Amino acid sequence: MQLGEVFTPNNPNMRSILIIGAGLSSNALIKYVLKIAAERNWFVTVADAALENAQQKVDNHPNGRAVWLDVMKVNDRRELIGRADVVVSLLPAHLHLEVGHDCVKLKKHLITASYVSQEMYRLGDEARDRELIFMGEMGLDPGIDHMSAMQAIDAIKAKGGKITAFRSFTGGLIAPESDDNPWHYKFTWNPRNVVLAGQGTAQYLEDGKLRYLPYSRLYKEKRNINIANIGNFEAYANRDSLLYREVYGLANIPNILRGTLRSRGFCEAWDALIQIGLTDADFPILHSGEITYHELMDAYVNKYSGGSVRERIAQMLGEEIDSPVMEKLDWLGLFSKKKIKLPNATPALILEHLLRDKWKLKASDKDMIVMHHEIEYSLKGEKRQFLSSMSLKGKNAEDTAMAQTVGLPMGIFVKLVMEGKIQSRGVQIPVMREVYQPVLEELKEFGIVFHESDEKI
Amino acid sequence: MQLGEVFTPNNPNMRSILIIGAGLSSNALIKYVLKIAAERNWFVTVADAALENAQQKVDNHPNGRAVWLDVMKVNDRRELIGRADVVVSLLPAHLHLEVGHDCVKLKKHLITASYVSQEMYRLGDEARDRELIFMGEMGLDPGIDHMSAMQAIDAIKAKGGKITAFRSFTGGLIAPESDDNPWHYKFTWNPRNVVLAGQGTAQYLEDGKLRYLPYSRLYKEKRNINIANIGNFEAYANRDSLLYREVYGLANIPNILRGTLRSRGFCEAWDALIQIGLTDADFPILHSGEITYHELMDAYVNKYSGGSVRERIAQMLGEEIDSPVMEKLDWLGLFSKKKIKLPNATPALILEHLLRDKWKLKASDKDMIVMHHEIEYSLKGEKRQFLSSMSLKGKNAEDTAMAQTVGLPMGIFVKLVMEGKIQSRGVQIPVMREVYQPVLEELKEFGIVFHESDEKI
Repeated sequence: MQLGEVFTPNNPNMRSILIIGAGLSSNALIKYVLKIAAERNWFVTVADAALENAQQKVDNHPNGRAVWLDVMKVNDRRELIGRADVVVSLLPAHLHLEVGHDCVKLKKHLITASYVSQEMYRLGDEARDRELIFMGEMGLDPGIDHMSAMQAIDAIKAKGGKITAFRSFTGGLIAPESDDNPWHYKFTWNPRNVVLAGQGTAQYLEDGKLRYLPYSRLYKEKRNINIANIGNFEAYANRDSLLYREVYGLANIPNILRGTLRSRGFCEAWDALIQIGLTDADFPILHSGEITYHELMDAYVNKYSGGSVRERIAQMLGEEIDSPVMEKLDWLGLFSKKKIKLPNATPALILEHLLRDKWKLKASDKDMIVMHHEIEYSLKGEKRQFLSSMSLKGKNAEDTAMAQTVGLPMGIFVKLVMEGKIQSRGVQIPVMREVYQPVLEELKEFGIVFHESDEKI
Repeated sequence: MQLGEVFTPNNPNMRSILIIGAGLSSNALIKYVLKIAAERNWFVTVADAALENAQQKVDNHPNGRAVWLDVMKVNDRRELIGRADVVVSLLPAHLHLEVGHDCVKLKKHLITASYVSQEMYRLGDEARDRELIFMGEMGLDPGIDHMSAMQAIDAIKAKGGKITAFRSFTGGLIAPESDDNPWHYKFTWNPRNVVLAGQGTAQYLEDGKLRYLPYSRLYKEKRNINIANIGNFEAYANRDSLLYREVYGLANIPNILRGTLRSRGFCEAWDALIQIGLTDADFPILHSGEITYHELMDAYVNKYSGGSVRERIAQMLGEEIDSPVMEKLDWLGLFSKKKIKLPNATPALILEHLLRDKWKLKASDKDMIVMHHEIEYSLKGEKRQFLSSMSLKGKNAEDTAMAQTVGLPMGIFVKLVMEGKIQSRGVQIPVMREVYQPVLEELKEFGIVFHESDEKI
């Protein structure tokens, strides 16, 4: 058997996987899938609009090839999808639907890490009719959060417990050894999403009552979260806490909250940026191409007369001039005489541009993922609390914990589908035992381990 | 000459005007244009998607006809436009552009009261090449504000004055005799725009420095505006103050501000609605179809424990329980046990729905338009202030001051164009003397009169 014969993707005897998108966070996924492909004689095609991205990730692996793909070119896209058995889409969320339609038509399974849109759910019947699984929310958050929560929920229910509270928190953070700025934060995920996080109204349940938090109070009303053996954090509420009650089997639960973890002190300082006006993404600042950060800040505090811009910002915020919040603002360079140089930019875009530079991972930096569930339940007249926590550090700026925790669940699920071990069909998220059990089990081999405790309260 | 012969719109000897849109605020315009058409033997076609709207406005006038038009039906639209000499579009702003393209192609003049979009400005060269005038911002605000400001600016410059400050304020308010609610406000304009007003960042100039106000401080930092012989008001800054410096000929002015007038006490209470979270238009409230206003408010103040919902809202806002702000919130019914009954609605939509009912004009209610300019200038070493103010009351809920002040400038301008008295070509706003002089002069006949003062300061 000659190499050239075996490893061509057109070899009809070789089963194959298509990964669309080879961006920053695809490392761990592609590495994992190439490895299992070599073991099982599968073939992996990695397609990206930037061929060098795909080539770098495939790295001449004998079971892989890199191809150039403009995903808007329908025929090219369909040709690639048509040759695959399973398709993984790492495209931006709004492009999954096109791929979904192709997968229905061409009868291919589809896996993504993105939130499943209403439009995608509408493909459910067609996917089920054609014996296909379209698995969404198969990353970290959403993804591992669903799986680890459902494992705990099912176990508590199985022993007869009645769940009265579910709270779940996840954060993409920086490892203590790489934490060298006063915000104790660096970017490991889409900066734009971080800048806009929380806009809207957070909705959750407390003591059986609906709770709404508008953006203007979201970061002010953060809560402290202490996680044994991992650390002390704070969390702000996500917008989507109520969305998963039904699918988690917690329809009548009186307490449910999903939140995002940050280091202590982050939320108060981020709220200062909101109060100043720097997260507004609606309308551009007319002079943003010409002015300095100092002038930008000055323009926000005209009402507060006297003193330096820094003093007037402190006055507006009700902060001491050398408070931790002011120190964080200062460290960002918001009072510097440097030019912004972004013509016609919204405040949010100016802030994002600044943070991309200040919060960039250094090559040797390690990121850290933390996930924590708190489940209260009653069992035989006893009130109990189940805690489950996971943390994982990255190796460096290339090989991040974020890329591993987002990519590995998809990779493992690809393997399960290729091996015919998944019976579920239709558009799904990973809440069923046949998915979470083997995925969580294999994730342990990569250090993604949940530590659990269960005690009377 | 027989009636049937003369008054058919296809009579090629009869010049004609097309008005697209016969909604609430078209009354004054259509009435004016029908009257001048009768005097000059012109014909007026009023087209609307609801034929009865158009019929009601035309009211069997011998020089007019009402036609049904779905403006998205390109051929129907073009046929009507092709027969007219001048087209007035009262469509929602985003539909003007289609009409603009038709008017270029069919060589017709176009008049609107809406803000001129960047896309519309791009039609300027073509319109000019074809000897057409596309006049936008020809209503009240924008419209009469441009014209009255430019008349004052040109007069001050003509006598050698150097302008150092321009501030302009306009409000669509309720006349004192019809003011029967604690907000001292009722809707005379698009309720959705009122609910969303101010979102983004207001930008203006003060003492030569840029000033930015984010939404969260916009209504807090209102300013009091006292207008001689009209009344005492307050104003919040508009987003667009900087946009008109060039076109007003004030490129290097150190002070420029445009603002919206409200009755005293309005801004503080509106800011309370913002603080609660009721103006968020980004994301729907999941349970809005089932809960009451009382439950909605309760869900916003979970952090503030103890006492009634009303007490906790007061606590969150830092208000006394019976303060004027709390009285205004109470009057809206925000603490009532009535069901909201709007499934999946954003807070802003819930608020708009409530206000549409509470702030509705009664049939006999009179609205009131107030406009006020403050111009500071130096002349022969003297610092002087020029003030110019206008107020107009409506007759009732049908015949509003808003409809008159928006419609009459367009109507008068239609006449000027039909009579060949306008030389300007291209896409314009009404800042040139050949426009503002005759329009402002004729507006006086309708009681739209500016009272001016000019004194040393």
